[in-house]
Amino acid sequence: MGRIENALQAHGITLPEPVGAVANYVPVKVVGNLAFVSGQVPMQDGTLVAEGTVPSCVSPGQAQQAARVCVINALAALKAALDGDLDRIEGIVRLGVFVASDTGFTGQPAIANGASDLLVEVFGDTGRHARAAVGSVALPINATVEVELIAEVRGH
Amino acid sequence: MGRIENALQAHGITLPEPVGAVANYVPVKVVGNLAFVSGQVPMQDGTLVAEGTVPSCVSPGQAQQAARVCVINALAALKAALDGDLDRIEGIVRLGVFVASDTGFTGQPAIANGASDLLVEVFGDTGRHARAAVGSVALPINATVEVELIAEVRGH
Amino acid sequence: MGRIENALQAHGITLPEPVGAVANYVPVKVVGNLAFVSGQVPMQDGTLVAEGTVPSCVSPGQAQQAARVCVINALAALKAALDGDLDRIEGIVRLGVFVASDTGFTGQPAIANGASDLLVEVFGDTGRHARAAVGSVALPINATVEVELIAEVRGH
Repeated sequence: MGRIENALQAHGITLPEPVGAVANYVPVKVVGNLAFVSGQVPMQDGTLVAEGTVPSCVSPGQAQQAARVCVINALAALKAALDGDLDRIEGIVRLGVFVASDTGFTGQPAIANGASDLLVEVFGDTGRHARAAVGSVALPINATVEVELIAEVRGH
Repeated sequence: MGRIENALQAHGITLPEPVGAVANYVPVKVVGNLAFVSGQVPMQDGTLVAEGTVPSCVSPGQAQQAARVCVINALAALKAALDGDLDRIEGIVRLGVFVASDTGFTGQPAIANGASDLLVEVFGDTGRHARAAVGSVALPINATVEVELIAEVRGH
Repeated sequence: MGRIENALQAHGITLPEPVGAVANYVPVKVVGNLAFVSGQVPMQDGTLVAEGTVPSCVSPGQAQQAARVCVINALAALKAALDGDLDRIEGIVRLGVFVASDTGFTGQPAIANGASDLLVEVFGDTGRHARAAVGSVALPINATVEVELIAEVRGH
């Protein structure tokens, strides 16, 4: 078992089967040593763990957990794109975090920390990344959070 | 006529004259083998084909068509940046799709498919890309959709 | 004193001490010759220069100035990440500009020009960049503008 798989297990994280894109886009596109991961929503076992805007429908704490689930789905997508070998990930480059927000809700950074913290738990220092966290009026399928990311990867 | 020009013609798509940026940014910036295309709005023959939020001002179907127009404008910008040679595009890497959305509208993916589908029609498998589609409270000049993209390109 | 430091001084711009990220993300992540700068808010001397949405809380002109402050903070972060040598910046690649917007406010490009114009003042032609400017329902800590960017840099 690889180093990153071990770290996931140590944190009690089980990666789900990756969901293939159902349209003309792909979960992950690799160009050179960069892997671009499509925006992930917090699906877990086939259902959204958080729906609607913060804070009227979902508390900030629940949204933070949802951001964590988005990253777990991103890692599952990366694993599939990297032939099962997460150790090919050299580091995380950038995170884009969109938080479905009521007017006047300005706590997006704490929610995005749910995503950032998981990456550093799993990857250590190389998991630290640049980040943009912003509010969104509404997100696909009523998700509370959407996270996209860029990882640095190495070839086979 | 190049391969991609042929594919455009086969799909009945005529690229417009590219609109130069009217400020201190540029339609396309190439760095290494990546071409970053600025956010494109659905201008066609000098007018916006879709204005305002979905669904109160514009139907999802009209917005999907508008996303297609954004991509046509992105291809026109790329053609100009690549000295007229669209065959220098090796693939599409990432799409950012912003949809002007009423509160509670969560159908951004179907609208973004207007952009994704066109890219796969024109480029085939190499046109598949990572994507983030999100709702936006309001977009420049009241556009319904804004699409930015990154393409992989090769040198001369 | 380097070329870019001179240009900053000629425009009366003093870079602040960079603020370290207070979470598991970093102000700048460099991968290869690309430096990704995290979303910057318009903090100046420890306070936000513009809070809330445009135009109900902040005028477009004030928001444009705030976008300029975001870029100054991005340059301060880049300077720290590049061991103090801004001349290692070969050019600016892409700007993401999020403007906290009331429903129906569609003037994001003029506000983003506050960011774009400063970059061209400082870097000249290589400061021109691809750009996506969009409206956001609400931004972190109630900032009016958030700007993230990608710069092209060279090694030591």
